[in-house]
Order: sequence, then structure tokens, then C-alpha cells
Amino acid sequence: MIVVMDLRVGAEEIKAVEDMLAEYGYRCHAIYGEERLVLGAVGAQKGEIPPGLETMPGVIDVVRITKPFKLVGREVKIEDTVVETGKIKLGGGFFSVMAGPCAVESMEQLSASARAVRSGGAVGLRGGAFKPRTSPYAFQGLEDVGLQYLRRAREETGLAIVTEVVNPSDVARVADTADIIQIGARNMQNFPLLREVGQLRKPVLLKRGLSATVEEWLMAAEYILSEGNYQVILCERGIRTFETYTRNTLDLSAVVLAKRLSHLPVIVDPSHATGHWHLVKPLALASMAAGADGLLIEVHPEPARALCDGPQSLTPEHFNELMTELGALAPVLGKKLWQGVEESGS
Amino acid sequence: MIVVMDLRVGAEEIKAVEDMLAEYGYRCHAIYGEERLVLGAVGAQKGEIPPGLETMPGVIDVVRITKPFKLVGREVKIEDTVVETGKIKLGGGFFSVMAGPCAVESMEQLSASARAVRSGGAVGLRGGAFKPRTSPYAFQGLEDVGLQYLRRAREETGLAIVTEVVNPSDVARVADTADIIQIGARNMQNFPLLREVGQLRKPVLLKRGLSATVEEWLMAAEYILSEGNYQVILCERGIRTFETYTRNTLDLSAVVLAKRLSHLPVIVDPSHATGHWHLVKPLALASMAAGADGLLIEVHPEPARALCDGPQSLTPEHFNELMTELGALAPVLGKKLWQGVEESGS
Amino acid sequence: MIVVMDLRVGAEEIKAVEDMLAEYGYRCHAIYGEERLVLGAVGAQKGEIPPGLETMPGVIDVVRITKPFKLVGREVKIEDTVVETGKIKLGGGFFSVMAGPCAVESMEQLSASARAVRSGGAVGLRGGAFKPRTSPYAFQGLEDVGLQYLRRAREETGLAIVTEVVNPSDVARVADTADIIQIGARNMQNFPLLREVGQLRKPVLLKRGLSATVEEWLMAAEYILSEGNYQVILCERGIRTFETYTRNTLDLSAVVLAKRLSHLPVIVDPSHATGHWHLVKPLALASMAAGADGLLIEVHPEPARALCDGPQSLTPEHFNELMTELGALAPVLGKKLWQGVEESGS
Amino acid sequence: MIVVMDLRVGAEEIKAVEDMLAEYGYRCHAIYGEERLVLGAVGAQKGEIPPGLETMPGVIDVVRITKPFKLVGREVKIEDTVVETGKIKLGGGFFSVMAGPCAVESMEQLSASARAVRSGGAVGLRGGAFKPRTSPYAFQGLEDVGLQYLRRAREETGLAIVTEVVNPSDVARVADTADIIQIGARNMQNFPLLREVGQLRKPVLLKRGLSATVEEWLMAAEYILSEGNYQVILCERGIRTFETYTRNTLDLSAVVLAKRLSHLPVIVDPSHATGHWHLVKPLALASMAAGADGLLIEVHPEPARALCDGPQSLTPEHFNELMTELGALAPVLGKKLWQGVEESGS
Repeated sequence: MIVVMDLRVGAEEIKAVEDMLAEYGYRCHAIYGEERLVLGAVGAQKGEIPPGLETMPGVIDVVRITKPFKLVGREVKIEDTVVETGKIKLGGGFFSVMAGPCAVESMEQLSASARAVRSGGAVGLRGGAFKPRTSPYAFQGLEDVGLQYLRRAREETGLAIVTEVVNPSDVARVADTADIIQIGARNMQNFPLLREVGQLRKPVLLKRGLSATVEEWLMAAEYILSEGNYQVILCERGIRTFETYTRNTLDLSAVVLAKRLSHLPVIVDPSHATGHWHLVKPLALASMAAGADGLLIEVHPEPARALCDGPQSLTPEHFNELMTELGALAPVLGKKLWQGVEESGS
Repeated sequence: MIVVMDLRVGAEEIKAVEDMLAEYGYRCHAIYGEERLVLGAVGAQKGEIPPGLETMPGVIDVVRITKPFKLVGREVKIEDTVVETGKIKLGGGFFSVMAGPCAVESMEQLSASARAVRSGGAVGLRGGAFKPRTSPYAFQGLEDVGLQYLRRAREETGLAIVTEVVNPSDVARVADTADIIQIGARNMQNFPLLREVGQLRKPVLLKRGLSATVEEWLMAAEYILSEGNYQVILCERGIRTFETYTRNTLDLSAVVLAKRLSHLPVIVDPSHATGHWHLVKPLALASMAAGADGLLIEVHPEPARALCDGPQSLTPEHFNELMTELGALAPVLGKKLWQGVEESGS
Repeated sequence: MIVVMDLRVGAEEIKAVEDMLAEYGYRCHAIYGEERLVLGAVGAQKGEIPPGLETMPGVIDVVRITKPFKLVGREVKIEDTVVETGKIKLGGGFFSVMAGPCAVESMEQLSASARAVRSGGAVGLRGGAFKPRTSPYAFQGLEDVGLQYLRRAREETGLAIVTEVVNPSDVARVADTADIIQIGARNMQNFPLLREVGQLRKPVLLKRGLSATVEEWLMAAEYILSEGNYQVILCERGIRTFETYTRNTLDLSAVVLAKRLSHLPVIVDPSHATGHWHLVKPLALASMAAGADGLLIEVHPEPARALCDGPQSLTPEHFNELMTELGALAPVLGKKLWQGVEESGS
Repeated sequence: MIVVMDLRVGAEEIKAVEDMLAEYGYRCHAIYGEERLVLGAVGAQKGEIPPGLETMPGVIDVVRITKPFKLVGREVKIEDTVVETGKIKLGGGFFSVMAGPCAVESMEQLSASARAVRSGGAVGLRGGAFKPRTSPYAFQGLEDVGLQYLRRAREETGLAIVTEVVNPSDVARVADTADIIQIGARNMQNFPLLREVGQLRKPVLLKRGLSATVEEWLMAAEYILSEGNYQVILCERGIRTFETYTRNTLDLSAVVLAKRLSHLPVIVDPSHATGHWHLVKPLALASMAAGADGLLIEVHPEPARALCDGPQSLTPEHFNELMTELGALAPVLGKKLWQGVEESGS
């Protein structure tokens, strides 16, 4: 850590800062400039910044030298984490597609969706039984019945189930059904929920918050890993900007950055990122080219009848087209589009 | 609702949209332009937008004519809601100040803070027993012990207690202590938590999310009112922008707008909004001038020793100065700076 | 256009609005709801919104039904505009790469850069002779000498020259040298400059402003086309968001959207978008996958000695690698990576 | 300046960085931590960061210790700059209001506006003769005729004229008419224009760019001062955020910050910041309370007939109300609402 001080303060103020740093286990090295004093503080075991340091007289700035995350960082684990569950395999060159409707609406709708995405080449089925909605008057999900439908869809198709949990007290029952538990963007910093899923030994898909920095996103993942659950999948789903033609702004730099800073797999949800089905295909291809490890795509057998997010859902036909193009792109990018089984001879 | 269609589609597509609207109880009126058809849809009881409407062939845009919120809107209740609890009175011209440390750290620290803010003229004591922190390794609050200290501070000073809840399962025990339950910015769209505090019959202080629009903020309040709890206080605490000199960007237009659109009281937290104590006083005065109904201010007896958010905490001396200036400003603005009792002769 | 009125106003106010609309050539159709009156206004030749309409008593909202841009829109020209100059060919499936240093620093530096990017497969040479810099004390470019070096580099390598103009009074002399005139992000809404380059009959590369919406970007292009210059290349270079790890946030949705709304070619500058050379390659590949028509890349023979933007410059080696990967990707995406000549047999 | 290096690189890389720093006149002090080396570089006369430093092998981060601005900073001039011209006096406790229409439309409109704002207590008349508009098809201003009208309005009312210049080649003729030359938000980083007005010895009103940081805004002012013109007035006019109910988001923290970092006067334009006349009054009062030195307000005799920005214009009646409230507020805040003459006895 570096502490920048104003040289116009007296020796007493400087000593107070040095004492505070010593109290937290730091050794100080001073560099005197003409107007500023720079204290380089090294050697503390815990690397904690003394609280209140920035408010001490004469302190102009406190600059952290090391990254605040630990377990999620590439510095502790160089090789990619590969997450595997059911037919899904993500990371280390394996690229998996999870698809399905925004919300589970009925067994018929879910079943049609599941068969369609399975036939297109998806290995996971997404679908919400608990839906966080902006309005209290909007459809909030089928809850337990939805979970039951998801289990039946898994039996029918073999797809791994990706579904969201919004309340810490529901984690156990959702985990009972889900192969991958999803934490939505609005809950990225719902710390009791993060701690709760950190207790599981199941993969967690952690969406980036609407206006979360990459560092905050990684720190949210750190919450889960720090509880002992190392199977975390990061999911970029667009950030909020001033642009109004799209629902959000997909941030593919964040994908590249997150993969550079962390060993965790990173996937993209181009459906929520854009809000328009016709933007989904080009951005899905771009996500793979940027280095993402997978995709989460909304597919609905009849988008115009979807109870939620119809405008951003692909039809099964468009989904098939997308999968074909991803299949052609993958080998050029050194990726393997994972279909659930090692192909013979490959 | 207005549905804009492309006239190059056929009569069949137009009929499909009209049928869909009819199914949801709308009567349609068509206006033919040269390239566009505008369907004005009126008369539906529930005013619900048919799901998937935007994805129907030929539909270019769907424009909502009425606001999505109901109970929080000025249209259902013209006069200001006044929230009263303990010495606090907010709204309808009454301006209350709640102050105290970011986190409850010890009985000594809390007691010193409480006495200081009481003597300065605050009517509420803020202080977190449960702290949502970006890092899992940062101080997370004293939890139950913190709640106990808050109760003792209330006994000592008579101040009403404002404290945060982060987990739906903690609502009952926090409500047991708190006079006003706080929902933090990160939890503005934690819908299970909103529903849970909606069950209470105690005031709820709802902070605006880091990147929430005013409409989303009001819709979050609508969740609480729709459960039967009408005592909601909105709190602007800064939004996230590109500016890096300040922690967040205080948005006083949102205060004016929220008070125009809604009957609920709106207060400001200039401490979190700016992150620097020296910006707090001018922005606190500006908040009152913009029409806010109160303030939430961080005060710490020894900011340099604060376990959380020291740089944005006022000392008791600075807090006293601020209260004096607010006291001078209030009558010019037609506000009453509430001190917990009706002054004789006023 | 649609005008939404509050039905609580009287017949007089409604008539005033109808008269105003009639004055501008509109015919009105009224749709009465329960609380709102919707006036659909059609038929005006010029489609102008009467100034002040929104402030008339009873008017709640004015909604534009048609897009504000005309000449740049797909509605007036369905097929892609292809821009060709020197070896460059952009649009309609042709993908060109323009590369070079941020600023022209010396003939040696420019010459080395030009030869390096030519050998890697670039068809255009970028390099600024006039540099808009945040600080008045930073290097501002070699100006006329820089232009002279650019002409020599073109003679040596045959590369087309892309260089920026910042002052309307310099347009003639910069156009004398440039094959493509660049308008930088800070000047996207410098309207006198846009009008001036609109007078030319040379391609203009128009960068998106730091916080410009896609609509504003297209309207800026409309300025140039409305002066008679139809050769405009749109360039996405990242927008400003709250993220601090990257210089800007690359917005590939804007590329997809701009290509959908407009017939103009759209390219990407991943160097300025990210500010870090190690993010350039993955985002360049992603840009091609998203449908971009070309790239603008910073390459410097010795990035650590660059007078400007060294951290985001590729070395010639990294640039060669990128070109090889783009070459492999292009056919899969149905693009032709243009090298300046039609390959025999292709 | 501080250079953070990775200790895993060898002695050679460290020496290369030290040599580069020495070349630019720095003396280095090294602090060895466990994983990082911190080089404190002091003593260089010009304080320039060696270009390319960040790209040198082993360099993780370069942290600037001193602010990049010089002439505009409080460090070189502690006392407030007071700008005086005609009846206007801004800074050092003097608060002036400049008001008028967005655009000069006709002599009648301008004359009516000027008389109205004069009678309300304004000391300056704003009005654009050159209008930067998003669409090439919108009204672009009366240009020279507009300037002539402004001169006549000054003769009639004695108000000082504030008007915008958008093209460097127009600076001389606009300066001929204007008492204060305005640089609009879109031109905050139009450096040739800044240099040109820097040659004048007349006050320049510099609006903050739509997404400019406070530092960039001050650096733009630095351009003007560095050319010798020290009379710069900073004007906050709202920044672009995700909020859609308002045109922009007024950022009053920026006012407080700019006044803290710089000695220049800072005013607020609440009309452009909000885009709605009903938000103007509360935010104008809030601006004064936050410490602003003046206001720029849109007033139109007949907002519904305004050719530009009618929705955000106050009527003369509303303007009078605002001035009365500002007059009551000023003494409480230790400000003098300047009316052009020292009042007798005050």
C-alpha cells in the first residue's frame, strides 16, 4: 500500500500515520518529494488497510498495490477452472450452450423448449421458477411447480438444469432441482444469498450486476469461494448505460478481463444484454470470438406468447441457425463446442 | 397503450395484433399514416401489456401511456404522506435529520455518537448491525450484539433507531429493535426482502439502487405498499457514473422528481453519495433547498478510527455546524427542521 | 407523431394543440381513453415537431413514430454502401484493416510502422498529425510536417492514409493528404467540422462520441450526407461507463444496431476502446464476428517509446498474429479480409 | 509519480525503468515488498510521465501523485477569481443570474425576453445566434442577424450578453458582440476553439461536457488560461446517465468539487440539466445552497412557441418567483445576489 501525504503538515501528523500503519503490521519506507511525501507500506500479513487512514490529517491518497481478491485470482491458480455437471463442460477450451425460456410457464411450454434446444445442441436448460420482476403486478414464476416441471424436463431430455434462486431460505429446495444454481444480476451483491450458495457443493452461475465493476463481480464470486464452493461460473449479461435502443450494453471487454484476472469460466447472456432477438446471434458469435466459455440463450417455442421477455427470445429455428454457426466458428478459435459427449475420433 | 405497426405488413398481421389486444380487454382505434399504423388501445381494466406483443410481426413499438406504479403515485393520493415514529417526523413540510456511524462498533462508540448527534439536533440514530460489504474479508457488523447496543442507545438518548436488514429471515429480529428499517441500495430490488418488510407496520427507509431509474425505485416502493405497509421513506444516496473523484454522483433531480411523482417522503444521504466528508455540508444544504424531507448523515466521534466509511463521516463539531446552517435555512424554504417536539409559540 | 394529453384539461386546450398541429400540416385523429387523450398526427410533409408542443397545457408526452434520420437509414437504401479508396474496400462483405501509430512522431517511426502493418496485411495507415489531447501541455502532433511524412509513407508502401482533422479551417489541407479523413470522438458533434467535411467528395471516418447514443451518431453522419458526401464510415471506439479497469467500454451491440439501422459501413477501434494492448486481439476478433466491416488498430514499432497511447499499441509481431487469426475467421463468417487486390481464382 | 513493478521480473527490467525515469529528470527511490517493487520518482522539473512507461516489461501500474492542472488550481491561487463584466459579478460571494431564451428567434422575442429577465433581476442576457443542433434539419440560429439583435437588446436593457461560439473562425465576430463568450457542452474538448478564445481578454463561460469528468473539465479550462485568458467561468449543465425521465442528471457534487479544486467561479444551468421547467426552480435553489456563484436560466415569453428547448423554459412569471426565492436565500448562505449595483446601505 502507498500513502501519499502533503508535506505541508508537520512531523507529528506523519508520525501518527506511521504509527497507525505499524499498528496494522506494516513497515514504512518514506520518499520525500518537493510537495508530497510517499509512504510505501509493506509486510503486513493480512494486507488490511487501516480503517480511517484516509481521514488522517495530511493524507491525500491511499493507493492499494495488490488486488483485493484472492481465491478467484489467476495469481493463486494459473490454469482454467473447468466446471462439469451433467452434459455441461465449461472452461479450459470447452464451450457449452445453455438455453430455454425466461420463465417456466407450463409443462407443455417447457417441454417444447427443452426438446427444441436439445435438438439444436444445447447441453443445459435454463428456465426460471422464481422470477424477480420490476413490478409487483407482473408474473412472478410458478415456484415449486416450476421446479417440478424442470425435473421432468431433465428426465425427458437429459439436459442439465440452470435455474435461479432469489431468497436465501429457498436455496436448499432450488439446489435439490438445479444442476447449476443461478444468482441473478440484481442479487450479485446479495451477500446472505452468496454465503448460502457458498455452502453448496454445486456449480453457481453468478451474473454480473447491472452496474457492477469487474472487480466487484470478482469480489462477489470471492464470497462464494470463501465459503468453500469453488465451482463458480461468471456470466456477463450487459451493463446499464445511457443507450436506449438496447435494454443493456453488452460488455465483452469484461469477459476478456475477467478471464485474464480470474481462473473461473466466463459465459455470456446475449439475450438479456440486448433485449432484442435480432441482436442475439451476432453477439453470441462475438462472445465466442472474445474468448467466452459458453452462452446462456433465451429460446421460446412461441415468443409472442411468452409471459416474460418474449422480444429477446429466439425461435427454435433461429437457435438452430446460431448453433450451426457456433459449430463452424469453434475450431477456428481453438474451442470445442461441447455436446455432452466426446465425439469419436476427435 | 399505443402500438405502432409497419404498414407494409398485411391485414392478417394487423388483425392478429388487434385480436391479441382484444383478448386482454382492450378496444382498438386505428390511425393510418403513410408508412405507419398507430393502434390506440384503451379500456382494459388491468392495463396489462399482453406479453409478447412487441414480437408480433409488424409491431415496431409499444408505448405505454400510463405510469406503471399505482399506490405510490400522486394520482391516487395528492397530499404528502407524513411518516412519524419516535421523535421523527418526515414529509408535509417536516424535515428530520438522522445521523450516526456507518457501523455499530462498540457500545462506547455508539453511545458517544448518539449523544453527539442528539445534542446537535438529530432525531434519529443510524448505525448498521448487519453490514453488506464488497469484500468477504471486511468487517461485517456486530449483528445481534449491535442490535442490543442500538436499543441501549435509544434508552439513553430517546433517538429513534434506523438500522439495516439484509436477509428476509432477519426481518423480525431487526424490526424488534428498529424504529425505521433500512433497505440498502444493493437490496433495492431484493424482492423477497421487500415483500417481507411490506408485512410490517413500521416505517421502511428504501435507498435508491446504484443504477436504478426513478421509475424502478418507485416500483420497489410499490412492492412494499402492495403488501400493506404504507410507511415508506425514499432515500437518494447517489448513483454510479463515470466520475471518479466522488464515490457516487448525488442526483438531486431525482429527489424533485420522486416528490412530484409520489406522495412519499424523500430524504438524502449525502455521506454515501459523495464519500468525502468535506462535500457533505454543501450537499446537505442543497438537498434541503431542492425539497428533500430529511437527511441521513454519517457522524463518527473519531472518523480516523471508524471500521467503515471513515472518510465520509463528519465529526460531531462539523455536524453541529451543519445543523445550525440547516436551522437557518429551513424557515426561508418553508420547512420545519423537526427537533422532536413542537416548539412553544411556533 | 403521437401527442398524449390529460383528459382533465378542457376542450379549449385540446383545440389549441390540434390547431398547432394543423399549422404544421398535420391531420389529427383523436382516441379517447379514460384519463388520457391520444392524438395521432399524420400527413405533414416535413414531419417536423412543432416547437413548444410539449409545453402546451394538457400535453403529457409527445412520441415520435418515425426515425429522425433519413439519408443514412436503411429505409432509403437497402443495400450496403461500399467505401473504396486506394487499397481499402469496406462494406458489402469486404473487411479492411487500417493500422499504425496513434501519432506521427518522426519519419523513421512512421516508416517502420507503415512497413510493418503493410507486411501484416493492413490496407490503410492510420497516424495523427493533429492530436486532440486532454492536457494543453501534452504533445499536440507534428501538424504539416506530419502530413508530409504521411504522404511519403503512402509513396513507400501504397497504403491509404487515414488521418484526423480537428479544425474546420484545416479541412482542405488535411484532405489534400488523407485518403480517408477522420473525425475523432470528441468532435462527433462539432457541426461546423461535419458540414465542412460534408463538402468533400472523399471518405470520412466518423468516430462515435464518448457518450453518444447510436441515434446521435447516425444524426452526425446525417450532417455529412446532407451536404452531399455519401462516403461515411462509422467507427465504434468505446463508450464511457463506470468501469475503471478499461479506458472505455467497447459496445459491439452498437455495431450490430448501426448496421441494421443504416447502410453505411461500420468499423471498430479496439485500441482506444480498451486502452490495453492485451485486450485488443480478442475484441478485434469479436468485432469481426459481430459483423463489423473493418478495424482501426494502433501499432507502434516500439510501444514503450510512443509519444501517445503506447499502452494500447500492438507490436508488429502481435499485429501479424492478429491478422493471421482474422484471415482464418473471415471465410467462416462470410467475410472477405481485403488485401487490396482480388486474389486470383477467388 | 509512483511506478509499481512486479518483482518476478529481473534486475535488467528494473534498471530499464529507472533509466527511463532518469532520462526524464526523475530521481528514483525503491521500496521492495514481497511481490511488488514500488519506485517513487521525484524531482523532475516538468513532471512529465515518460511516454510508454506503462508498457515496459514488469510495470504493473503508474500512479500520478500530483494533479495534472496547474493554472486553474487552488494550489497556485488560493482566493476566488471574481469575474466582472457589465452588470455581472461572479465569484467571491457574488451571485449573478443570466437568463433568456435558448435561441434568438426575432427582435420581438428577444426584446420581450430581455425586458422580462431584467425586470426579474437578471444581470445577463443569454441567447444563441449559432445553435449546435443534433439534427441538420433543425433550426440552426439567426447567426449575424442574431448577434445584431443581441447588441440591440443590450442597448435597450443594459444586460451583459452571453452567447455561444461554435467555430474557431467565428470567434472574432462573436466576441465583438458578446460580453461573455459561451463554449457549449459539445465543444468542451474542441481544442482549437479553446485556444482561440484563450487569445481573447474577455470572460469565457465553459460548459462541462456531457460525460466529462471534473478533471477533464478543469483541463479544458487550463487550455484557455494557458493562452493567457484568466477569466473563465465554469458551468455545470448536467451529465449523461441512464435516467430517462430527465434530459440529463444535474451533478451538484461537481460544483462543490470544482470550487474546491479551482479558484474559478462555477455556475449552474438547471434548464439544460433537467429539460423540464418544473424542475428548474428547486434545482436553482439547490445550486445556490451547494455554493454555486451564479445561474444560467432559460426564460421565454411564450415557451410553447419557442423554436428550441421550450419545455425547459420558464415563463417570466416563474422566473420572477425564482428570483424572489433566491433573494431570500442568499443572505442565509452568505451570498450576495448581485443586481448590478451596490445597494445603498448594504
